[in-house]
Amino acid sequence: MEPTTPQEACFEAGIKFGTLYHQFAGTPVSPESAPSLARAMEEAIENQPFCSSVSVEILEDTLAAELADQSADYTELTGRFMEVEIAVDYDGVDVLATMAMDGDYPRMELQRVGD
Amino acid sequence: MEPTTPQEACFEAGIKFGTLYHQFAGTPVSPESAPSLARAMEEAIENQPFCSSVSVEILEDTLAAELADQSADYTELTGRFMEVEIAVDYDGVDVLATMAMDGDYPRMELQRVGD
Amino acid sequence: MEPTTPQEACFEAGIKFGTLYHQFAGTPVSPESAPSLARAMEEAIENQPFCSSVSVEILEDTLAAELADQSADYTELTGRFMEVEIAVDYDGVDVLATMAMDGDYPRMELQRVGD
Amino acid sequence: MEPTTPQEACFEAGIKFGTLYHQFAGTPVSPESAPSLARAMEEAIENQPFCSSVSVEILEDTLAAELADQSADYTELTGRFMEVEIAVDYDGVDVLATMAMDGDYPRMELQRVGD
Repeated sequence: MEPTTPQEACFEAGIKFGTLYHQFAGTPVSPESAPSLARAMEEAIENQPFCSSVSVEILEDTLAAELADQSADYTELTGRFMEVEIAVDYDGVDVLATMAMDGDYPRMELQRVGD
Repeated sequence: MEPTTPQEACFEAGIKFGTLYHQFAGTPVSPESAPSLARAMEEAIENQPFCSSVSVEILEDTLAAELADQSADYTELTGRFMEVEIAVDYDGVDVLATMAMDGDYPRMELQRVGD
Repeated sequence: MEPTTPQEACFEAGIKFGTLYHQFAGTPVSPESAPSLARAMEEAIENQPFCSSVSVEILEDTLAAELADQSADYTELTGRFMEVEIAVDYDGVDVLATMAMDGDYPRMELQRVGD
Repeated sequence: MEPTTPQEACFEAGIKFGTLYHQFAGTPVSPESAPSLARAMEEAIENQPFCSSVSVEILEDTLAAELADQSADYTELTGRFMEVEIAVDYDGVDVLATMAMDGDYPRMELQRVGD
């Protein structure tokens, strides 16, 4: 069947999440550089069509714990170190989606579609 | 409202497209290396949950035309050089989505949701 | 032959350039989001070992000219839109390297090694 | 001082390593998709100037051990899962460089410069 407008809105939200994760995963990150990286991720993804807002929180405690256990004083950005919320407005349909750890897996999930 | 299963299927399809594009955009590519890159992109994305198949076609004519106009004998992969088809099966809902150039923009689109 | 300390310093400078370019190439960018992206690139790469400073300048005029010619109001970051300077200090050997367009190719070059 | 030819050769080798790592880190990978990814990485980097050969070995045992400990049946490519050898020939100067784990850090190292 032809996709509906809400389905297209959900597809757009998925694109933003895949983009955010795979553009920035692997970036060298430390507690000092986390704020500028989070801000750049938000503003980069907000450029994409239909994206009304992006919020990236780098989990500084999780990051600090990782660094305490290893030899280098930075690591690579991965899903374990961030929580993300993305809002899409596609032809009047609002979608809210999030990413957070679900056990050991960074789960991207639709939270709300439409009103 | 709570997302429906077909909406979640579309969200998953979007994630795969964002991943594919932003993981591999920027990769050095030439006509010689295009087949191995296309194959790796397909198999990498097929690892993701609910992804039943991925087909990546590198547009070798477009790539050759670009190389004829520039000094280096390779370039960076971008949307202009590929067409992609991704099939998702999420809880029994099949989604087919594609990427191709729409004028100067690499358009990712849902083609079919469910039966 | 065994590498010398200045050769190792140059190798380190090269790593930083390859990292910066291929981590961030493909990022959605517009004149509005360029400053946060430039800052994040600088701070991310400065995390790497032996890296004393990184300066990224997004060429806003070149970016604006590109956007005037296309349908979308953002594009993907690539070498044409930035000039970069990276300083490395490896075991007391300073290296300065730059990236800028050389005709149609983003040329990464050593400028100075040691005193 | 002006860089010497061997120093420039080492800079080029560093660029290739930074490119390889940060282009492909984060790629979804499993034992089944590892061979196609390794091949694509080799051929992609061999496109770059002065690069005579690239060898990527995905460490399938390390990868399998990681997967046995987690819920998903794939993971993201990172330094822990690969060993890489890159040969550069720059104006007649051969450089051999490698990447392998050094404790918990993926160490990129010059092995040999010139004859």
